[in-house]
This record gives sequence, C-alpha cells and structure tokens, in this order.
Amino acid sequence: MPRYTIGVDIGGTKIAAGVVGSAGRVLARVTSRAHAGQPPEKVIAATLQAVQTVQARAGLAGSDIAAVGVGFPGHVHSARGLVLTCSNLPAWNNHPLRERLQEALELPVVLDNDCNCAAWGEYRYGAGRGARYLCYITLSTGCGAGIVLDGKLYAGATGTAGEIGHTVVDPGGPLCTCGKRGCVMSYACGMALSRMACERVRRGEPTLLRELCGPAPEQISGEAVAQAAAQGDRVAQELLATTGHYFGLALSTIVQLLNPDRIVIGGGLAHIGAPLMDPCLQALNENIHPSLIGSAEIVFSQLWEDAGMIGAADLARELAGSVQ
Amino acid sequence: MPRYTIGVDIGGTKIAAGVVGSAGRVLARVTSRAHAGQPPEKVIAATLQAVQTVQARAGLAGSDIAAVGVGFPGHVHSARGLVLTCSNLPAWNNHPLRERLQEALELPVVLDNDCNCAAWGEYRYGAGRGARYLCYITLSTGCGAGIVLDGKLYAGATGTAGEIGHTVVDPGGPLCTCGKRGCVMSYACGMALSRMACERVRRGEPTLLRELCGPAPEQISGEAVAQAAAQGDRVAQELLATTGHYFGLALSTIVQLLNPDRIVIGGGLAHIGAPLMDPCLQALNENIHPSLIGSAEIVFSQLWEDAGMIGAADLARELAGSVQ
Repeated sequence: MPRYTIGVDIGGTKIAAGVVGSAGRVLARVTSRAHAGQPPEKVIAATLQAVQTVQARAGLAGSDIAAVGVGFPGHVHSARGLVLTCSNLPAWNNHPLRERLQEALELPVVLDNDCNCAAWGEYRYGAGRGARYLCYITLSTGCGAGIVLDGKLYAGATGTAGEIGHTVVDPGGPLCTCGKRGCVMSYACGMALSRMACERVRRGEPTLLRELCGPAPEQISGEAVAQAAAQGDRVAQELLATTGHYFGLALSTIVQLLNPDRIVIGGGLAHIGAPLMDPCLQALNENIHPSLIGSAEIVFSQLWEDAGMIGAADLARELAGSVQ
Repeated sequence: MPRYTIGVDIGGTKIAAGVVGSAGRVLARVTSRAHAGQPPEKVIAATLQAVQTVQARAGLAGSDIAAVGVGFPGHVHSARGLVLTCSNLPAWNNHPLRERLQEALELPVVLDNDCNCAAWGEYRYGAGRGARYLCYITLSTGCGAGIVLDGKLYAGATGTAGEIGHTVVDPGGPLCTCGKRGCVMSYACGMALSRMACERVRRGEPTLLRELCGPAPEQISGEAVAQAAAQGDRVAQELLATTGHYFGLALSTIVQLLNPDRIVIGGGLAHIGAPLMDPCLQALNENIHPSLIGSAEIVFSQLWEDAGMIGAADLARELAGSVQ
C-alpha cells in the first residue's frame, strides 16, 4: 500500500498544505488564513485542520500518511525540532513546535525553516535540479535564503544559515525589523517596498501610488508598485530599482562567499520581472569580482509558492523512508 | 621507509616552505623573498629552490618526498590546478601553475588558494580542530577566508568561495583594489590601513604616524599604526577602530550566511589585539540577529604564519595517501 507525505508551509499571511506524491506532484491542497503571527496554539490547531482537510481531499485514510513536513518562517533548529525565534514574537522563542505538532497530528514531523524547505523543493523537483552548490533566495514579504550543498540541505551550526536578509549592506541605513540598520531587508523585500512607497507618498511626491493605495499608504503592495511602474510612474520605477539594486547586492554577497553554481530566485516580488530584476543583475555584476561574473546561473523558481510545501513534504519522505 | 610532504605558501611578500611531518610538525623550513607579484617563471623557480632547500635541511632525499602542497594568493581552481586570477596581474590569468610546478618538481602537486590552505591547516592541527562548520579569516595585507564544512574544504563552484574581502559593506565607499567601491578590504586589511593612515597624515592631522613613517606616509605599516595607538595617538586608535569595525561587519556576514560554529582569526594584523578586536567584536554583535550572538566561537589562529604551509602540506598528504 503506497503511503504519502504532507507538506505544510506556515507563512506570514497564510498556511498552505498539500499531499505530495512521487516526483513532487501535489495531489490535494488547502490554504488556511491562519499565519505565523498568531499564537502558537492557534497555528498548531490550524495546521492540524489543514492536514486533515488535504488528507480527506486526496481520499486518503490517516494510515496512508507516513509523515508531515513543516516549513516555518523564523529561526528553526531542525535537528532539535525547535523554533528559536520568529520576527519579534516572543511566544515563539524556543518553542518545541515539532513535538507539539507530533502530539496533535499523531505522525512523525520534520520541522525546518521555510526557505530551507523551499530550497530543498527546488533542488529536488524544480529549478535547482542538478546544481551542486545551490542557493535559493526569496524576495517576498521578507528576504531569506536556503542552501543545498552536494545534495544536502546546509543549515549551519544553529540551523540559521542563509540569513542573507539581515546582512548589513548599508551601515547607518534605514531601521530594519530586526532592530539593526541597513540590512538587505531594509530595502529588498515587500515590507521595505511598502515603507519606501509610503515615505514617498507622504513626502507629497507626484505619483500614481497615491491613488492606488487610497488613504492608507502604508498598505501599498508590491503588486501596486509594479502596476504603477508599468504605467510609467517614475516614483514606482525608482522604488523597484532600489529594491532590485539591494537584492542584487545580497546576491553579490552570496556569490562572493558561497560561490554557488546556481541561484534560484523565488517569492512573489520576483514575478515583477525586468523593472526589478534588471537593476538586480546590474548590481550583482558590478559588486562581484569581475572573474566571478557568470559563475552562478541565475534562474527563477519553477515551483514558486508551492516550493516550501513540496520541499517540506520531501523532507518528510526522507524521514519516513520509502513512501509513494 | 616514511615519506614526507612539503608545504609551500606563496604570499604577496615572500614564499615560505616547510617539510611537514605527522601531526603538522614542521621539520625544516625556509623563507624566500620571491613573491606572487613577480612573473610566474620567477615564482616557479623560487618554489623549486625553496623545496630543494627544505628537503636538504631536513636531511631527506628526493625519494623521501611524496608530494608538495602549494597555497597561492588568488582565485585558484584547485581541481583543475589553475590560478584563475591574482590581484591585477594578467600574467597569472588562467595560469596552469600546478602542471608547471609538477614538471619543475617532478612530484605530485596540490594547488589551492592560500586562505583555503590556512583554513585546512587550522582545522587539522590548530584552532579549528573539532569544529563542524569552520570559517578561517585572515586580516593581513589583504582579507580573505577559507571554509571547512563537515571535515571537507569548501571551495564552491569555481574554487573561490570565502571571498569575504570583496563583499560590499559600504556602497559608494572608498575604491578597492578590485575596482569596486566599499568592499570589506577597502577598510579591513593592511593595505587599507596604510591608505587611511596616509590620508590622515597628508591632511595634516596631528599624529605620531608622521614621525613613524618619515617622508613616505604611504608606507605606514600596521605595526607602526599599532605602536602609535599604544602610545595614545588618537588618529592611530581611530584607524584601528575603523579597520576593526569593518572586519567585524565581515564576520557578521559570515555568521548570518554560513552560521559557523567556529571562526578562526589569523593574519599579521590580528596580533594587534584589543585596539582592533574590541571594535571588531562590537560590530559583529551589533550586526547579527540578536539570537545569533555567541552562536560561533571566535578564536585566534594557533598556527599563525605557518597555517598555510602546514595546511598545504596536509592537502598534499591526502593526495599522496599514507605518508609520515
């Protein structure tokens, strides 16, 4: 009797779960409006609910599920099954999420950082296949990376390798959510794009963004900025260029320090394409040693928003041994 | 009959060679005034000479030497035995140094980047022993790093992993030797310290450095700056603090991206100690996620200027198989 694993991607705005079969195929899926910003009890209950829903949608019995893989957006110590920290939410500090989920689900659980899960998903079934030294980087609400070296997820000593979003690229720059100044993420992520757009609107600059966001400029989305840029709005174009530039600086650090053969770019903002990626690639090539230009193949994600779920399910497959 | 390997460290100002026995013990050594800035033919001849000298000093016959390991200060593709680039010296571009040395020495040769050799030396016989994810970083004429992960030297796709010196930490900052602006190395290395000291002297600031360097301020050494700082010279103290600060930023990037369990600091400037290391550690801890403070043990080198030679010899041991 073939058995399956379920991947769960706990995000900052939703929880996505899917039954994943062989070759990374998603057999059934569900999205819940619960998210990592809620209390752990609520997230655990929502995860249980999501797992039961996809299992039912796939027409499977509980005994058909071998294990569950869970990606979580924070510092995660996978080997110990702990969430170490998540943004500035003290409820998650040193939270034994894996154990709690195992009790709730009555199944073996693998817990890892969401970017690590996505990196693994791309490596196994997406744009990272065949890479020897792979770095997956996401440009989304936040900015983070996952690393796969020689066919193994590389998590570092405390499970936090790949924290490129909080490397400093502009000392004395804007305040980041982490409390430091001038992190990559203080320019290169959806939150930073909203902040910078809001600042420009508040400063009274002429821009379509004023109408697009209405009375609450702090809610400007990456999509709205992209839309305004496509309509020729200079401010929006400059914002995307700034975000792209600092994202490119982040890539340059990765190329200099890790020298990967492939970098896979994922996350919602990556869909914006040229207005963001052209300045990114320019900054990358201008900020690495000239001999390293072209040393890493730069490609977009193939699994996109499913990467974390599929990767988490595949990590659970490894845990459970031979399954469907 | 026991056989030995010889390690050669080709540097920017000298070539050091040694016969290295078991447990990393240096049985005989020599230092030559040849250096990597000279034409390849001269460097190859000086290396041959150095190898013959140490072999004789150790009382060994040619047949006692199993292999030679060579560290070189540039981009090196170890697997292909090539120097890819060395500073801005076109004579070294894609130079088949390993093959040329094998012909000259009539022995198997391992070629690797000098920092990689030093990292390996520290991992095997020095301050890196027992580390799982080790980063060795040198603060010397330049600034570079070598990485050892799970007991294996990590060189990346084109052999250049660990190029922390040319990651950008201050966009728009001073011009670096690589042609970019605001690299770690435009502040944190001996060359940068000399440049900054020279600028301060030329600006007419009151400082002991003026007397220490005489009529040629561009020749101010790290030792002279340290000496002036120890005598209470404010300018010298500020220079060391600046160098230390940017070196700490480099460490913060390493901690964020690689999450090592140990960082070994080597190189001549590291001997300066507190006036440089205090600002370094402060910058490190201020520029990593608070939960990562203390995640990596920060220690000084144990092999110091022998690290590269001993590491190169040990890499040659691995090539040659079982030797003394």
